[in-house]
Amino acid sequence: MKVAIVMGSKSDFEVCQGAVGVLKKFGVEFVVKVMSAHRTPDLAHDFSKNAIKNGFSVIIAAAGKAAHLAGVLAAGTTLPIIGLPIKSSTMDGLDSLLSTVQMPSGIPVATVAINGADNAALLAVQILALVNKDLAKKLEEYKKEMVQKVIKDDSALQAEL
Amino acid sequence: MKVAIVMGSKSDFEVCQGAVGVLKKFGVEFVVKVMSAHRTPDLAHDFSKNAIKNGFSVIIAAAGKAAHLAGVLAAGTTLPIIGLPIKSSTMDGLDSLLSTVQMPSGIPVATVAINGADNAALLAVQILALVNKDLAKKLEEYKKEMVQKVIKDDSALQAEL
Amino acid sequence: MKVAIVMGSKSDFEVCQGAVGVLKKFGVEFVVKVMSAHRTPDLAHDFSKNAIKNGFSVIIAAAGKAAHLAGVLAAGTTLPIIGLPIKSSTMDGLDSLLSTVQMPSGIPVATVAINGADNAALLAVQILALVNKDLAKKLEEYKKEMVQKVIKDDSALQAEL
Amino acid sequence: MKVAIVMGSKSDFEVCQGAVGVLKKFGVEFVVKVMSAHRTPDLAHDFSKNAIKNGFSVIIAAAGKAAHLAGVLAAGTTLPIIGLPIKSSTMDGLDSLLSTVQMPSGIPVATVAINGADNAALLAVQILALVNKDLAKKLEEYKKEMVQKVIKDDSALQAEL
Amino acid sequence: MKVAIVMGSKSDFEVCQGAVGVLKKFGVEFVVKVMSAHRTPDLAHDFSKNAIKNGFSVIIAAAGKAAHLAGVLAAGTTLPIIGLPIKSSTMDGLDSLLSTVQMPSGIPVATVAINGADNAALLAVQILALVNKDLAKKLEEYKKEMVQKVIKDDSALQAEL
Amino acid sequence: MKVAIVMGSKSDFEVCQGAVGVLKKFGVEFVVKVMSAHRTPDLAHDFSKNAIKNGFSVIIAAAGKAAHLAGVLAAGTTLPIIGLPIKSSTMDGLDSLLSTVQMPSGIPVATVAINGADNAALLAVQILALVNKDLAKKLEEYKKEMVQKVIKDDSALQAEL
Amino acid sequence: MKVAIVMGSKSDFEVCQGAVGVLKKFGVEFVVKVMSAHRTPDLAHDFSKNAIKNGFSVIIAAAGKAAHLAGVLAAGTTLPIIGLPIKSSTMDGLDSLLSTVQMPSGIPVATVAINGADNAALLAVQILALVNKDLAKKLEEYKKEMVQKVIKDDSALQAEL
Amino acid sequence: MKVAIVMGSKSDFEVCQGAVGVLKKFGVEFVVKVMSAHRTPDLAHDFSKNAIKNGFSVIIAAAGKAAHLAGVLAAGTTLPIIGLPIKSSTMDGLDSLLSTVQMPSGIPVATVAINGADNAALLAVQILALVNKDLAKKLEEYKKEMVQKVIKDDSALQAEL
Repeated sequence: MKVAIVMGSKSDFEVCQGAVGVLKKFGVEFVVKVMSAHRTPDLAHDFSKNAIKNGFSVIIAAAGKAAHLAGVLAAGTTLPIIGLPIKSSTMDGLDSLLSTVQMPSGIPVATVAINGADNAALLAVQILALVNKDLAKKLEEYKKEMVQKVIKDDSALQAEL
Repeated sequence: MKVAIVMGSKSDFEVCQGAVGVLKKFGVEFVVKVMSAHRTPDLAHDFSKNAIKNGFSVIIAAAGKAAHLAGVLAAGTTLPIIGLPIKSSTMDGLDSLLSTVQMPSGIPVATVAINGADNAALLAVQILALVNKDLAKKLEEYKKEMVQKVIKDDSALQAEL
Repeated sequence: MKVAIVMGSKSDFEVCQGAVGVLKKFGVEFVVKVMSAHRTPDLAHDFSKNAIKNGFSVIIAAAGKAAHLAGVLAAGTTLPIIGLPIKSSTMDGLDSLLSTVQMPSGIPVATVAINGADNAALLAVQILALVNKDLAKKLEEYKKEMVQKVIKDDSALQAEL
Repeated sequence: MKVAIVMGSKSDFEVCQGAVGVLKKFGVEFVVKVMSAHRTPDLAHDFSKNAIKNGFSVIIAAAGKAAHLAGVLAAGTTLPIIGLPIKSSTMDGLDSLLSTVQMPSGIPVATVAINGADNAALLAVQILALVNKDLAKKLEEYKKEMVQKVIKDDSALQAEL
Repeated sequence: MKVAIVMGSKSDFEVCQGAVGVLKKFGVEFVVKVMSAHRTPDLAHDFSKNAIKNGFSVIIAAAGKAAHLAGVLAAGTTLPIIGLPIKSSTMDGLDSLLSTVQMPSGIPVATVAINGADNAALLAVQILALVNKDLAKKLEEYKKEMVQKVIKDDSALQAEL
Repeated sequence: MKVAIVMGSKSDFEVCQGAVGVLKKFGVEFVVKVMSAHRTPDLAHDFSKNAIKNGFSVIIAAAGKAAHLAGVLAAGTTLPIIGLPIKSSTMDGLDSLLSTVQMPSGIPVATVAINGADNAALLAVQILALVNKDLAKKLEEYKKEMVQKVIKDDSALQAEL
Repeated sequence: MKVAIVMGSKSDFEVCQGAVGVLKKFGVEFVVKVMSAHRTPDLAHDFSKNAIKNGFSVIIAAAGKAAHLAGVLAAGTTLPIIGLPIKSSTMDGLDSLLSTVQMPSGIPVATVAINGADNAALLAVQILALVNKDLAKKLEEYKKEMVQKVIKDDSALQAEL
Repeated sequence: MKVAIVMGSKSDFEVCQGAVGVLKKFGVEFVVKVMSAHRTPDLAHDFSKNAIKNGFSVIIAAAGKAAHLAGVLAAGTTLPIIGLPIKSSTMDGLDSLLSTVQMPSGIPVATVAINGADNAALLAVQILALVNKDLAKKLEEYKKEMVQKVIKDDSALQAEL
């Protein structure tokens, strides 16, 4: 059970580190790859076609602007593809979001928020947790940690007031 | 391995039938529920909290306008939640899409295209296929059918020209 | 007659201080809480269900991105809920605005401008003033102060020219 | 305790009937007025300035396009103004929404969804219910009716499947 | 023949200086006023109603967010009103633009580009030039200056290359 | 004192009739021309350059999509150009609006609402009224008629209720 | 010198007929293909890689929603790719436009207007005309026809008035 | 075979240098011109009408806001015009994009991404490469370089991890 984080450009890595952090925290095996739907179509094609054979269970595809990477990978495999739209210097992420989420019938991409790298990884963990009791337990823990974090933030705020 | 299709309003069923059709085609067990994040928060809360216990593996949540249903269900479970934004009478679906996809860190929603019910169901099948070889095979078949359908469409077009 | 300012994340407090300032100025009792519709659904649920019993009259709910907090609180109470959309790092506040204002029939949220914390609090004061003559008088004063402020600004501008 | 439903054009009445229906259902006294911020500024000005004196507690202002009516009425009174953006023939309601909700500091407008007339009236009832126990009880009933309606819709759907 | 530059907030003066500069360049008499459609409705009302009597020929109204100032002034006079939408901290000027330009039938506002203060003033000059031969001549000169400026910019660019 | 209504395509005439009606009502002399910035650049160029000589005082330019007509005419004359953005089959008029209103410094276009032909003509009348007392009086009458129309609409509504 | 019109779905043919008509009018050889970036990635891949070898000079790629077809074809060839965004049932074509035009550095797509099939074909003809004197002459003729058409439309309009 | 890079304002040169760099890299002859559709319509008109005679094969037109330059040049020639929308200080480039791409039938503009100067030049090279074997070969090389660049970026990333 291995996750691939594929990004369209090395500059997307800054955002993608959020996903790396989450996968590490949950102890999920992963690889990170730079691979472009447009600049390296053959690599993307091959990666996608062989993803199952190579032991991947979920692929996170991060790209900006006319973000085709998630869709192109989805075209070549039946694995769930998680689309992570990256905000670039124009259009405030709307182009990446629409290019990623508005997929035609037959080829879904599971899209998360613009720059939502944490959530892309958490979604991957949720999917893997369906067959991994340990991950399921960790997700329950994570939900509890979030509650504690909010309660702590609230206490801190009360102290500040 | 059971999927829930939950919709915020019975009027969303017209769109959701696309998901029903796909799940039937793949022989995936499912239930369909009307349940509103706002009008029946307790039902939604309970459904979500007990979803794992009740044998669900994936939940598809369809809602329009300020579409909170997917997020509210995601808050109560660690199962993967697929968000299906429904286009309503104003804003051309943009409100539903943003309300569904722009989730804060910690609570992902796997969002598909506006009114993309087929893809919501296909994504569910892809997730289930990770542990169901039979579904995986059917997905491969489905991909091949799509190729044949396009080739047939192309032939029909050549004949028309 | 007490107002609650509830925010989805402690980082929203910077904006929310505008509301705190206005409520202090008007001498309205209030509490400030961090509470997330998604990370602490039970807390939000309980807070909302018990808000009347706990003496609240109006709730201001501040949240960003897929801003569900106002809607989730509105689901659990019949008190007026004031939605304050917070601008986050993408989409310039449009996601927060649409997620807050486009509520389905039956569950209104009284939405103010993106980052309009002052106005959220003023709206709360206007509502309370319906049964509090003193607040009504203060609001009249406030309107007069605004006139004086504009006149003073105009004089300052004339001097600058 | 009286509500005014003010609309910028008689053509807005079709949408506003949703508000009329809700106020009737809750037994809230109301008047309906056609009055334009731009075509009848004096009428709007006078109405707003005398609204408290004339016994109004809440004003619902419905307008489309560059929807200034709610803001103009808010300028002249300290009563809570509920803004109801009306969708017109271009821009899908976005112009009305932004013109209504994006009010500058000092003059809030409690904005509901585009064409959300039901919710405009419900919000008015929620505000009045703060000092009217009977209305508060009716709102509780209304929430329960909504739950029953959803449950009934769900049953109907199960029967259809 | 006098122009009024009216702005909703003193903070708009930074942008409005572009208009001041143009009117000075063309030797057009003008006043600059801070006046808010919402905070000082009576002042705005009176200013507008008496604008003709007070010798104004054209009014430039600058405002941001739910920019009602131009519309409110247009409601009270038959003079041409030039709307100058000011970009504020959210929505990138779209709210100001739509609130200014999308006026209902009967009350036009001559809208220029977001933050387009130069053009607001030039439009005023063009209008005044219809009855002022001298201004008409200056506008012709201005057009020629622009040509020379572009040609000079082009030469400078050729030198840089 | 003559107005030109210039439209980019004969199909725009349906909307432009609103302008024709207003100019007739006010007894303003006008011509209507089909002329395209892109398909007949020479005609547009010549028309614009000779507009003053040919006795025009104001030009209304109606166009849809990448609506360049108003800008192109404005480039060739110092007359005030009124831009009338026409809604076409995609983008709900946003493309026409932005292409018309967002003019660069130096070349203003007085833009009215999308499909706001009435207002385009009224703005022309307002400009002409600066030197035509009769038109000024008619505009005052028009404003009064609008008031009466709203009052009558209100009475009709009261009767319906 | 052959043009390919490739569309993502047979349903796009209705719009694409505009391109067929133009290419026929200019006597340019062409083929029409249905081929999906997502459903038939291998076909698209092969088509693109062999496009030069197979004698194509320009490819028109028509697709809707998350319109990746033009980008995917551009990835596999150095031929100029003309992107034709197709409006689908949501988002008014904005998704198709952004997905087509916002290509990353290195892989351009020459994008025309949403549903602008005529222009896609004309652009192809303009490109071919660089080396085909006959086409260049026909384009000159076409420009003159457009002028005549506008003049005729204007005459017809004058007659109608 | 010569390319013209025409920009509406000298300030656009910063973005346009991306195009200069690419044309130099490919050894394509080019000129750079500042020329405004609105400020220097005659220059633009003449440039466009004489572009073929003056030996140009492709024109790249860069402009911001209501970006008419590409359309105005396209009106005067049958050469392929590449539109490069420049992001200005408001609207995040959406105004430039829509003003450039949404051209009416008959006058295409080959639009690239907002600020996508590299791609504008690459598209020009692709067009010229149809009749220049050497350029075609260089484009093939360029595609290979891009692959190597991505592979190198990927290696660098692996090293960083």
